[in-house]
Amino acid sequence: MKIAVLPGDGIGPEIVAEAVKVLNALDLDIEMESAPVGGAAYEAAGHPLPPATLKLAQEADAILFGAVGDWKYDTLDRPLRPEQAILGLRKALGLFANFRPAICYKELTHASSLKPELVAGLDILIIRELTGDIYFGQPRGRRVATDGHFPGTEEAFDTMRYSRPEIERIAHVAFQAAQKRGKKVTSVDKANVLETFQLWKDVVTEVGQQYPDVALDHMYVDNAAMQLVKEPKRFDVVVTGNMFGDILSDEASMLTGSIGMLPSASLNDKKQGLYEPSHGSAPDIAGKGIANPLATILSAAMMLRFSLGQEAAAQKIEAAVQKVLADGLRTADIYSEGTTRVSTREMGDAVVAAL
Amino acid sequence: MKIAVLPGDGIGPEIVAEAVKVLNALDLDIEMESAPVGGAAYEAAGHPLPPATLKLAQEADAILFGAVGDWKYDTLDRPLRPEQAILGLRKALGLFANFRPAICYKELTHASSLKPELVAGLDILIIRELTGDIYFGQPRGRRVATDGHFPGTEEAFDTMRYSRPEIERIAHVAFQAAQKRGKKVTSVDKANVLETFQLWKDVVTEVGQQYPDVALDHMYVDNAAMQLVKEPKRFDVVVTGNMFGDILSDEASMLTGSIGMLPSASLNDKKQGLYEPSHGSAPDIAGKGIANPLATILSAAMMLRFSLGQEAAAQKIEAAVQKVLADGLRTADIYSEGTTRVSTREMGDAVVAAL
Ligand SMILES: CC(C)[C@H](C(=O)O)[C@@H](O)C(=O)O
Ligand SMILES: CC(C)[C@H](C(=O)O)[C@@H](O)C(=O)O
Repeated sequence: MKIAVLPGDGIGPEIVAEAVKVLNALDLDIEMESAPVGGAAYEAAGHPLPPATLKLAQEADAILFGAVGDWKYDTLDRPLRPEQAILGLRKALGLFANFRPAICYKELTHASSLKPELVAGLDILIIRELTGDIYFGQPRGRRVATDGHFPGTEEAFDTMRYSRPEIERIAHVAFQAAQKRGKKVTSVDKANVLETFQLWKDVVTEVGQQYPDVALDHMYVDNAAMQLVKEPKRFDVVVTGNMFGDILSDEASMLTGSIGMLPSASLNDKKQGLYEPSHGSAPDIAGKGIANPLATILSAAMMLRFSLGQEAAAQKIEAAVQKVLADGLRTADIYSEGTTRVSTREMGDAVVAAL
Repeated sequence: MKIAVLPGDGIGPEIVAEAVKVLNALDLDIEMESAPVGGAAYEAAGHPLPPATLKLAQEADAILFGAVGDWKYDTLDRPLRPEQAILGLRKALGLFANFRPAICYKELTHASSLKPELVAGLDILIIRELTGDIYFGQPRGRRVATDGHFPGTEEAFDTMRYSRPEIERIAHVAFQAAQKRGKKVTSVDKANVLETFQLWKDVVTEVGQQYPDVALDHMYVDNAAMQLVKEPKRFDVVVTGNMFGDILSDEASMLTGSIGMLPSASLNDKKQGLYEPSHGSAPDIAGKGIANPLATILSAAMMLRFSLGQEAAAQKIEAAVQKVLADGLRTADIYSEGTTRVSTREMGDAVVAAL
């Protein structure tokens, strides 16, 4: 089994190093190879996703990804900015199914902005379509407006779109995930305004008929943004498009109060996957040794489960993370009085010891 | 001064009746005329926005709007559904500037999902562009896909777009609003992915240079959805496009825990405006006399301020609402132990008495 390790920018290298340490401690037959990505790759090779990095990723069974981005690249032309690496990988590998769990750990409930009774035991799985929608639709660009309110002036535009098979395959992913959990899917759309999401709603409804054991409901995206705040535990699996999923998955992860704990997976139809923490590159704390490596370590567990068929090893990592939390170890982002503050490396070491 | 009164569906008629009562009690020189809209208009005239209703709205100085929508119209063709009335009014009257305050009233802080210290004293103004973006962009529809992942299959599509003058005028509205408040504007975009919002960001930045007394920052929409949960009080004025504004303004109003209290205004460049509560038509409680009329009453106050130049009367209404809250009067949605539960009508009467 071959893993491409792409640490990236900011705290990426530090947190990925701890996940690699945990994987090594499991004594599996895994080959790991690293390559630069994002701003680091721009510095090293003039492009956020250099051909060698892309090739490594394409040939691997899975990608362990840190994070990309830094304010200092904000002035680069868009195709050279760090985030193009992640968009490029999604597109090149066809990683259409993004899994974003929003879990509130018992020990960390108090860290949420929400009242404890609203988030205690929270366990939502947001499934975001990742290769379609307005992220990749053509045409897009700038032009002179020919209609609208101000014809003759400069306008910018993008194309939102989904085809029937694209919606079908992500719907199947969602219903199958729900079958293994709470047996409930909420499909989020804006069918009252958008043609794209009227088709989305129609197709998800059709696919749902093949899963009579799963309850399906539909919610407009504005209402979903509200219900996540009002009563997050009403959700089990949420499935939505790329743009709405970007917004709602971030909102949901922030509800837990501990985004430093949340992993993610992005899979294609061959179960090849990219695994990364839900949080970003946090350049402000990079190099200080205080970042929380647990989201990345839990992403490695997802990788073992989804792409490498190593369920037992995945569970071992998850149990070890549970244990370090129960033992009161905390990085700065989740620290509270009465617990023990540890560094990035100490947290990684503690997980290895708990395996 | 002429006001078009459009009560609409669900609880619309009940709450609008109370706002009309308050306006009448002020003894201003106002002429009010009612017309059906939404599902009620579909029933009465076969269309959610009949020509007579549109004409009345166009000729009025302001529109007092209740709410539209009911599950029972979900199966109608899209052009006949209730929400087309509100989209049609926005478009026909050019109501491009939507003001959505998210205010947490001292007496109601406990009703928020968020911990009290995070929302006590919250006062955000979300300014949403309301006549552009993917809501109205052409072309849109269904077709056979010619490229993308599944060429040859059915796809649905929509067009996102903004022209430079559309962005300029809403940016001016936001900066001028900020000058009267906390002197801070946060512009929300997705410039890292969308051409439309790269132009948005560029133009807002340019316009911002004309307002050196206002601090401007830029935030990606996914991050904004998170920061609203994490630290809502960091915001003063938030300005964004139609689609992102739909999502974020609803998220922000739910943060306050008392969406039944929140008014909204939608203005054009002639200060003609549509005023409506931020909440919906709530068909489940329609006709029971328990809906909260305060958001609508406060919308009437915004109407007096923005469209009718009656600042003193607006303040009188707002002070009266403060007084009934301080007196402990509560409709069911904001009731808590130790306060006095009142009906829709009793709440309206109490505001009139407090004027
Ligand atoms: C960096 C950006 C392009 C990306 C996205 O919008 O998809 C990020 O926000 C994410 O959610 O992974
Ligand atoms: C009813 C719907 C078309 C509308 C919108 O999306 O604008 C509503 O959600 C709103 O925010 O006023």
